[in-house]
Amino acid sequence: MNQGELVEKVAKARREDSPMQTPRKIYLMTVVLAGVLFFTVALCQAADPLPSWNDTGSKQAIIAFVKKVTQKGSADFVPPSERIATFDNDGTLWAEQPMYFQFLFALDRVKALAPQHPEWQDNEPFASLLKDDIKGALAGGEPAIYQIAMETLTGVTTEEFEKIVKDWIATAKHPMTKRPYTEMVYQPMLELLTYLRAHGFKTFIVSGGGIDFMRPWAEKVYGIPPEQVIGSSVKTKFELQGGKPVLVRLPEVNFIDDGEGKPVGIQQHIGRRPIAAFGNSDGDLQMLQYTADGNGARFCLYVHHDDAKREWAYDRISHVGRLDKGLDEAQAKGWTVVSMKKDWKTIYSYHF
Amino acid sequence: MNQGELVEKVAKARREDSPMQTPRKIYLMTVVLAGVLFFTVALCQAADPLPSWNDTGSKQAIIAFVKKVTQKGSADFVPPSERIATFDNDGTLWAEQPMYFQFLFALDRVKALAPQHPEWQDNEPFASLLKDDIKGALAGGEPAIYQIAMETLTGVTTEEFEKIVKDWIATAKHPMTKRPYTEMVYQPMLELLTYLRAHGFKTFIVSGGGIDFMRPWAEKVYGIPPEQVIGSSVKTKFELQGGKPVLVRLPEVNFIDDGEGKPVGIQQHIGRRPIAAFGNSDGDLQMLQYTADGNGARFCLYVHHDDAKREWAYDRISHVGRLDKGLDEAQAKGWTVVSMKKDWKTIYSYHF
Repeated sequence: MNQGELVEKVAKARREDSPMQTPRKIYLMTVVLAGVLFFTVALCQAADPLPSWNDTGSKQAIIAFVKKVTQKGSADFVPPSERIATFDNDGTLWAEQPMYFQFLFALDRVKALAPQHPEWQDNEPFASLLKDDIKGALAGGEPAIYQIAMETLTGVTTEEFEKIVKDWIATAKHPMTKRPYTEMVYQPMLELLTYLRAHGFKTFIVSGGGIDFMRPWAEKVYGIPPEQVIGSSVKTKFELQGGKPVLVRLPEVNFIDDGEGKPVGIQQHIGRRPIAAFGNSDGDLQMLQYTADGNGARFCLYVHHDDAKREWAYDRISHVGRLDKGLDEAQAKGWTVVSMKKDWKTIYSYHF
Repeated sequence: MNQGELVEKVAKARREDSPMQTPRKIYLMTVVLAGVLFFTVALCQAADPLPSWNDTGSKQAIIAFVKKVTQKGSADFVPPSERIATFDNDGTLWAEQPMYFQFLFALDRVKALAPQHPEWQDNEPFASLLKDDIKGALAGGEPAIYQIAMETLTGVTTEEFEKIVKDWIATAKHPMTKRPYTEMVYQPMLELLTYLRAHGFKTFIVSGGGIDFMRPWAEKVYGIPPEQVIGSSVKTKFELQGGKPVLVRLPEVNFIDDGEGKPVGIQQHIGRRPIAAFGNSDGDLQMLQYTADGNGARFCLYVHHDDAKREWAYDRISHVGRLDKGLDEAQAKGWTVVSMKKDWKTIYSYHF
């Protein structure tokens, strides 16, 4: 309504109402509005922002931290621009067993690309992969993994790669649960992301996984836009292809965003220390150390995979997502260690 | 006021007011509020968001673009998450003559560090620099510049470097204007940044300058937070120094964010194509090409330094900020070319 309409409406109301009717109506309206306000406030206070979390120490520690850094007048108050929270992805926001989902993506890519590569039938690690012999393929160790990654992740433009990932994530299913991978995300962590953002935090992914493998779906699934995703990357090259400017993905590592690389990636992309960091493995340890050591209130959390029934149980001797040194340091420094078994009411948004 | 206080206030008002007084008071209050609303709306409509721009084609093109991508129902509407605008820094947001300000910072660093480097007295390019003979120092070409950069920008932690930059920017003065460097920013561009953000754009710096040279002051001066600054960088290394996790700046180039590097930097940090890009030199050409070629409405703008009286006039044959190929391509493709002389009412927030 513009100001002309508003003035006219007031004038009209005055014409229609007798002086005795007006206060009664306004009084009633005010009472009704006060009532609505009362119940809205009560409802907001009652609504649990973390309903998939049991009311245990982990949940209480999260809420206590958020309260103390966001309440005005708190000795630990942190201005919104400094409320940076970083999250590992594999094993922290979504599952990582029986192997990193990006590796399963690469295996599907090998099969999709095989017709264009007849030589793969006789060359490792591809020959084994095409026979679904993953163990045989990985016998070549890191060079084999590197070769698989370079063949499946490069040689296309960034926009072609984005489409490949989008198509895969829309159709591929987890080998054990038969669910789309985007349904293998942890419901309690989704609530945590939302809860932090509702309190002025900027949430980032800081993952050893490929930055361009996560970006095509992270905004839809986690509410995290591409510019807040940090990950490992290959080099890209600017080219004019028939006059069209594109970026071509080169078979050369640009950056490995894991372990000691995580604080480096954080500095490159964010340029300031997080005040809260969330991980699940030794690959996240340096990110948590770097976060914990900043000035003022800090929060570090490890997700501990201890629920063999509803998810997987692994830590010190796992090949994927090993949590060994990190578990010791978390205990020594009093970081929050989430027991998926005890602290999480639900794990996924559905039941297996 | 909480709901209890509100109810009490209404009850109190009812006790105090006679039925005949209430409608008159409310009517008067409504008329006053409508008046306030009327003038506020009128003021907002009248207020020019770009007061330092003359009402020429450049300003009209900017406003027309913003209108068409932000108005709901427009055929060119772009959702807020896709409203990415990238800005070069040197020569686009602040001045770059007689040489890049970061180079002037490096020269001051050489003098500050000289007592710790007695060997510099006899070795080039430092010996010349210490005698204020810049021309002599630069006789060594790119290797000399590289050596100066590495000696002055590395060997400290990221947090130590941040403090060095903050101290310098707070005290150093431009050699010709004698103004702090942060006052050598273009007032019309500050208004443009604010105008775009007010319309849901996310503004980024994409500069050939050092990412960690810009971040310490970009938020205060431009309203652009560290995580939205993209620039050239050296490698850093995570270390525990006496148990304290730090990042040490290494004397090794990590990334050059210039020319063909700009789209690469944009992909690394933002992960999507800008819809608007702003530059002033051939070093920005690939960023503008990359931006222009995306789907949907796009906006590319070159700031043309043609005002020898109020700033500097240079383009095709300048050593710093050369605009040659870019000027031809802008004219061929109909990009907006801002004449600082004709299009800008003021250049800085003050007069020399």
